[in-house]
Amino acid sequence: MKQKYINKYRPYPAVVMPQRSWPDKRIEKAPTWCSVDLRDGNQALIQPMNLEKKLEMFRLITGMGFKEIEVGFPSASEVEYEFTRVLIEQNLIPEDVVIQVLTQAREHLIHKTFESIKGAREVIVHLYNSTSVLQRRTVFRMNRREIVELAVKGAQLLKEEEKKYPETRFRYEYSPESFTGTELEFALEVCERVMEVLQPTKENRLIINLPATVELATPNIYADQIEWFCRNMTDRESAIISLHTHNDRGCAVAATELALMAGGERVEGTLFGNGERTGNVDIVTLALNMFTQGVDPELDLSDINKLIDVYERICRLPVHPRHPYAGELVYTAFSGSHQDAINKGMQAYQDGDSGRWAVPYLPIDPSDVGRTYESIIRINSQSGKGGVAYVMDKDFGFKLPKSMHPEFGNVIQRVTDKEGRELQRREIFKTFEQEYLKIDTPYKLKGFHVAKRHISAEIPESRAEIEATLSIDGRDVEIFAKGNGPLDAFCTALKENITGDFRLTSYHEHALEGGSSANAAAYIEIRYPDGLKAWGIGVDTDIIVASIKAVLSSLNRHSNLKPRK
Amino acid sequence: MKQKYINKYRPYPAVVMPQRSWPDKRIEKAPTWCSVDLRDGNQALIQPMNLEKKLEMFRLITGMGFKEIEVGFPSASEVEYEFTRVLIEQNLIPEDVVIQVLTQAREHLIHKTFESIKGAREVIVHLYNSTSVLQRRTVFRMNRREIVELAVKGAQLLKEEEKKYPETRFRYEYSPESFTGTELEFALEVCERVMEVLQPTKENRLIINLPATVELATPNIYADQIEWFCRNMTDRESAIISLHTHNDRGCAVAATELALMAGGERVEGTLFGNGERTGNVDIVTLALNMFTQGVDPELDLSDINKLIDVYERICRLPVHPRHPYAGELVYTAFSGSHQDAINKGMQAYQDGDSGRWAVPYLPIDPSDVGRTYESIIRINSQSGKGGVAYVMDKDFGFKLPKSMHPEFGNVIQRVTDKEGRELQRREIFKTFEQEYLKIDTPYKLKGFHVAKRHISAEIPESRAEIEATLSIDGRDVEIFAKGNGPLDAFCTALKENITGDFRLTSYHEHALEGGSSANAAAYIEIRYPDGLKAWGIGVDTDIIVASIKAVLSSLNRHSNLKPRK
Repeated sequence: MKQKYINKYRPYPAVVMPQRSWPDKRIEKAPTWCSVDLRDGNQALIQPMNLEKKLEMFRLITGMGFKEIEVGFPSASEVEYEFTRVLIEQNLIPEDVVIQVLTQAREHLIHKTFESIKGAREVIVHLYNSTSVLQRRTVFRMNRREIVELAVKGAQLLKEEEKKYPETRFRYEYSPESFTGTELEFALEVCERVMEVLQPTKENRLIINLPATVELATPNIYADQIEWFCRNMTDRESAIISLHTHNDRGCAVAATELALMAGGERVEGTLFGNGERTGNVDIVTLALNMFTQGVDPELDLSDINKLIDVYERICRLPVHPRHPYAGELVYTAFSGSHQDAINKGMQAYQDGDSGRWAVPYLPIDPSDVGRTYESIIRINSQSGKGGVAYVMDKDFGFKLPKSMHPEFGNVIQRVTDKEGRELQRREIFKTFEQEYLKIDTPYKLKGFHVAKRHISAEIPESRAEIEATLSIDGRDVEIFAKGNGPLDAFCTALKENITGDFRLTSYHEHALEGGSSANAAAYIEIRYPDGLKAWGIGVDTDIIVASIKAVLSSLNRHSNLKPRK
Repeated sequence: MKQKYINKYRPYPAVVMPQRSWPDKRIEKAPTWCSVDLRDGNQALIQPMNLEKKLEMFRLITGMGFKEIEVGFPSASEVEYEFTRVLIEQNLIPEDVVIQVLTQAREHLIHKTFESIKGAREVIVHLYNSTSVLQRRTVFRMNRREIVELAVKGAQLLKEEEKKYPETRFRYEYSPESFTGTELEFALEVCERVMEVLQPTKENRLIINLPATVELATPNIYADQIEWFCRNMTDRESAIISLHTHNDRGCAVAATELALMAGGERVEGTLFGNGERTGNVDIVTLALNMFTQGVDPELDLSDINKLIDVYERICRLPVHPRHPYAGELVYTAFSGSHQDAINKGMQAYQDGDSGRWAVPYLPIDPSDVGRTYESIIRINSQSGKGGVAYVMDKDFGFKLPKSMHPEFGNVIQRVTDKEGRELQRREIFKTFEQEYLKIDTPYKLKGFHVAKRHISAEIPESRAEIEATLSIDGRDVEIFAKGNGPLDAFCTALKENITGDFRLTSYHEHALEGGSSANAAAYIEIRYPDGLKAWGIGVDTDIIVASIKAVLSSLNRHSNLKPRK
């Protein structure tokens, strides 16, 4: 950047914090979650939700298990007033859910806010006024004393209005808005003065919400502020310390986590981080971060695709392909070494019996949020043998022997280097088919018969005699041989009559699941006198025939590797 | 989540860290930036870059001021090998830029890597092998000793290969890959053993890159790990501690920042956080976070739109609308109170002379990254008077008097409540025009003439006589009056001949800039005998006529407010 800009910005002041304790803490319990999707989220949408969409969002978040939901700013907009009325009058608020309404500390707004929640069983009225140095100076032109008076007056009005609605249980929340732009001791002073008015108790605590309305510093500073605040409160036990962060510096999740370690007990945020500008903190990420540490997030995130679908439709905002836990690409590995490690890790996890999730490059089991394993490994020019083998296994049931991975990996690499793009799974399979299963020149099996097969007391070894008809370059040839089994006999017949010597160096087989008939796959590696090696694969309902086909597959591939005679 | 999953995940172990110092540090200097867009970023794309796109990305990032660029993993893919060759053979690497190539610690890969960089002036060869507990067990099936041997062998091979390329200056980087999944003291052991082989000095330091290949814990833990590592190194001064974070828990920016405070000196990352799964750390955000703290990021981010355009085209990934500093919506306020504060803050900033940026809800001046103020305030049903006034001022040059803001705010609120969507700026202006400028019933000005206007010694007050022709409900009426000025005369004529009494309570005017002719706008508030007040606005090249029009605008609006007689 041009140097002249540099003095335009001031470093954020540090918090003097001897003996801070939060860096030694960890998050061991979910906080109280408060969804602000319908308020802070909604107000930042190009097209705010209409009544119908608000109701759908409300159902979505109550269904996830949110117990506190800020439903709007009823005194500021007709739509939000109406929505609040509908929730109450149509009795749409589940028994264990409390709605919250936001209001500025101004008389007519407070009055209208209370009107909007008439008849509710229980409500959190959320009072705020901005306390920051900057807003005091440029927006309100008030000094500290006047700001305190504003807040105190607001709190007094709450107590007055409350009396008019005896059927409702009122809880309160106070936010010194732009807390992180406010001198710490002044923020504390304002909150203490509000507490003096509202008289919270240990049994009926006041929610003190300390917003990073704009993220202004590294996340450790917010944690310092929260710890400082908690330490210095006169009556910490009558308050619930609530966190409310925004993502201007990309650190809202971090700031919230560190502040939870520092004493925060409640978190306001939104699904996927919708909200003003860069958004509020993303509760989905926070909750799943806890989940992956063995902490019950107390929210149901087991069908993340549904959350994404509803969110994207209602908010008309995308979930980014790289969004933690939710993005299209976050369970996907394209790189060869990652794929190989995931492949092995998944195998070890499935073979193990600890039940502990431990797979390289996957901090969470995709199936825990309702994602499939399908997309874990995708194939492009950066991919390697492990990923290709994984796809062949998971999608098509071919468990390629490990020693075969490099060969088929190279086959696919040639295609991806040429195409310069991701290969679809069916393209990988098509390549596999053409390379191994459909190759039938020069040798093609036309008939095969195990003439005799016996084990007797005199000849303790298994013996077999086979007859086979091959088409070789279009010419039919019959061969016959004996061996210690049908495959051995077939190879002997080939060597003696047609191909000359070769040597089977590896043999694998397995049943193929799925499909209409029970198939088996045979994998055979052959070393040829010219020093080349080639795998062949055969598939048949008869495993003997599958192995015969695999031999021919290798022979054909070997023939194609070198110039034909 | 279902409780049964909870024991599936293990909490990440804490770092025993007495007297950690990083929480008291701050970032005062940009680190050495290393772009891995062409490697970690590229390998995670659905469609990796072709040669042409790689060259374009290379030009983009060198243009921004990156001095170290990991250009690929040449031994793993033909495209990357070729790209490396093209850079060197076509002499495309700026003099002050060093390319970096990644290789696993395996002999044939190291050999091929050195071949790929033949002829380069200077290269950083980046050697890695995974050291994590999980990968040792499930992927490599090697014990600690074998992993150390692998790394040492790799380092020895570097020294051997180096001799074959005397024309090149070699620097080295070693990564214990999956560092955050590795026991700290073992990671240190591996690095120390590699250092023993490579023999770095204070003058030619080894880059020790400590990757959070997968983000596994809260960001303070990564900082602890970096501080622990720096403290416990035998020869800290011969190493450059490099950070490489991923965003699986949404905290890559935070982890990098805290780790810089903990001793990190170099950062590997990508533009907008492209990279495996959730992405690498986003260098754009990191750099602008520093910038907003008055620290020169040593990267040119003054045209962020260009970066976004090129990035989105090359990577085929979107920059999210809420992406810090870059998203479409991050400089936008829809909410009324935010708009009002921004409006006032912008005014105070422009009026002030400190040059310090201090505007509520905007942690950075959009113009510093090449964004305009146009999109700062957008109008939907959540917006208020301040935002509307801002748009009228910034986009159309109408500086509505402050006491008029509520009235026009309500006019717009009725439209947004009805439409339920964002209003385009031209729609706001159209509403303004129809409400104030084009309203011409019942009164329309047809002719106006200042008959006489004089100041004399005898009559020290300014005097004027006017003649005007109005069309009233289609019927022409001529009026004449005297007053202490043309406006006063016009009002007197109206009151005496047509309307009965009213009182001007507020008057503002200003020149309108832009447009083909120099116009003036007049704003007049009138209080009527029925207690109603209404603003009127007039625009004309003649300020006198503008004020006459404003009076009629108010009269017409007042007439329309109540049922016509």
